[in-house]
Amino acid sequence: MYSMDEVLGAHGRRNSELKESPNPLAKGVAWIAGELVPLHEAKIPILDQGFLHSDLTYDVPAVWDGRFFRLDDHLDRFWKSCEKMRLRSPMDRETIRKTLVEMVSKTGIRDAFVEIIVTRGLKFVREYQSFENNLYMLVMPYVWAMPPQLQRTGGSAIVTRTVRRTPPRAMHTTVKNLPWGDFTRGWLQAMDRGATYSFLTDGDGAVTEGGGYNIFAVKDRVLHTPARGVLEGVTRKTVLELAAAKGMRTVVDFVPVDLLYRADEIFMSTTAGGIMPITLLDDDPVGGGQVGPVTRDIWEAYWAAHYDPKLSFAIDYPAPALVD
Amino acid sequence: MYSMDEVLGAHGRRNSELKESPNPLAKGVAWIAGELVPLHEAKIPILDQGFLHSDLTYDVPAVWDGRFFRLDDHLDRFWKSCEKMRLRSPMDRETIRKTLVEMVSKTGIRDAFVEIIVTRGLKFVREYQSFENNLYMLVMPYVWAMPPQLQRTGGSAIVTRTVRRTPPRAMHTTVKNLPWGDFTRGWLQAMDRGATYSFLTDGDGAVTEGGGYNIFAVKDRVLHTPARGVLEGVTRKTVLELAAAKGMRTVVDFVPVDLLYRADEIFMSTTAGGIMPITLLDDDPVGGGQVGPVTRDIWEAYWAAHYDPKLSFAIDYPAPALVD
Repeated sequence: MYSMDEVLGAHGRRNSELKESPNPLAKGVAWIAGELVPLHEAKIPILDQGFLHSDLTYDVPAVWDGRFFRLDDHLDRFWKSCEKMRLRSPMDRETIRKTLVEMVSKTGIRDAFVEIIVTRGLKFVREYQSFENNLYMLVMPYVWAMPPQLQRTGGSAIVTRTVRRTPPRAMHTTVKNLPWGDFTRGWLQAMDRGATYSFLTDGDGAVTEGGGYNIFAVKDRVLHTPARGVLEGVTRKTVLELAAAKGMRTVVDFVPVDLLYRADEIFMSTTAGGIMPITLLDDDPVGGGQVGPVTRDIWEAYWAAHYDPKLSFAIDYPAPALVD
Repeated sequence: MYSMDEVLGAHGRRNSELKESPNPLAKGVAWIAGELVPLHEAKIPILDQGFLHSDLTYDVPAVWDGRFFRLDDHLDRFWKSCEKMRLRSPMDRETIRKTLVEMVSKTGIRDAFVEIIVTRGLKFVREYQSFENNLYMLVMPYVWAMPPQLQRTGGSAIVTRTVRRTPPRAMHTTVKNLPWGDFTRGWLQAMDRGATYSFLTDGDGAVTEGGGYNIFAVKDRVLHTPARGVLEGVTRKTVLELAAAKGMRTVVDFVPVDLLYRADEIFMSTTAGGIMPITLLDDDPVGGGQVGPVTRDIWEAYWAAHYDPKLSFAIDYPAPALVD
């Protein structure tokens, strides 16, 4: 069984151990130009076009309880994102895969947030065929878009009134982008309206996504999630697979905002936080205002899936050094 | 007189001198956390949210022939951009102004591209009220969005077919943003179609802007430029003022794409390049296919304005060291 209590309790214990770790990389590590650097000391050139024009793509796989989860799905998407943006990773896929595993192993972090970034490099896009792109890789303790304690009761969200998601015709929404201007405005509007999370529309009445998460509405045990104008999240994909395996119907289509207000349950999905229940929308309770049975069911199945050898593999960590 | 030959010739001579300069900062300098660093060695923390989520704003004033041009207009806009994004510069305006002048002076660069950036800092926007934002300042030799040689004949542009400008409801288009995903796609489409510059629409038949420049269409000696969904460029403002002073009519409004195809002349405006004539649009000549009389008139007035003491002020440079 993988109840909230068990999953979050075990993570809490691993996290306490991590905080006591004497490993100098236990707070995170960055790979930059072939060097491993403690994360909080890691620097990039100010002239990197990833900074100067947000000309980059990235991906975020995660490690849970010492196992890399769906790493190949993340690398698949990352490679597609690079192609769409005409970026070329200066390191081949197998070496990236191997390096990420080694990095996690060296930090000793058992629940890790992992990020791979390829930027345009030091020259403007106009010369894109003639120079090398830059690669950065980061490993840090697991990041919670919704803190564990809040997952027990559910968070509060708003539908933004004056911010829409950047449309696919402007930026590739299926490419993992770091230009979060619209999402940032969404986060600010949520705070202004006393909520925590924001749901952005497509500007024409359909739900899209929020800053780093996909959105699911449950109505009559059917799961609805937007088809277009959103990132094709790996967690979203896992939810769709798990729901189908449980015999639930899933609909990936246009999701009118109205459906959110009529939903029995709402949850968000992301690698950095998993399945995140929303129990208050625009100040009104969602369904009964509690974390609902479908959300709970998917939540437990999601964390259980992290031990499925078809979806994850164990990382070898060095034995902890004996402390005198 | 400020003809193209004179302006570009004099700049070319200053630029040749700069390339011979023994000053170690002549290739540029960055201000980072109170230190001045040679530009190509300057680094920022990888954890800066300006990089990780493009959560920042910036501005680009320029120095021409040893004079800072409209610096206060740039600082006005920069301060407004910070407010709109709820960023607070960690350095007050007067100190920034003074530091920029000192930086330019120290480099000895007489035609300079200057950039001020304020990022969210090291923490996610959700905690925006509780921490300090980061400031970076850069000075480098003048950047030409259109090389001087090409300004003499005019460049080629396309109207993008499948990329639209990010709408104001997604990101503040009046705030200077570095998320250039849409512009980057525009640059790539231009190259794919054998042109150099791209004009993005608003997705509904109106012209907006391109990657770093505003767009003007001249028809029957009236200057048209889009009102909405664009950056309110300082060069654009200068063009509107200069045209009005010459008794030309200017219209800042919805500009249908169709007007571009019927225009007598087209030019782009930006601090990094000035007035940039476009003589080929979607492979067809604009008007007579030459740099037109209105464009040339504005071009000359624009560079002349750099010596207007109401718009610019001279920088004190240290006397060059005597070489043994």
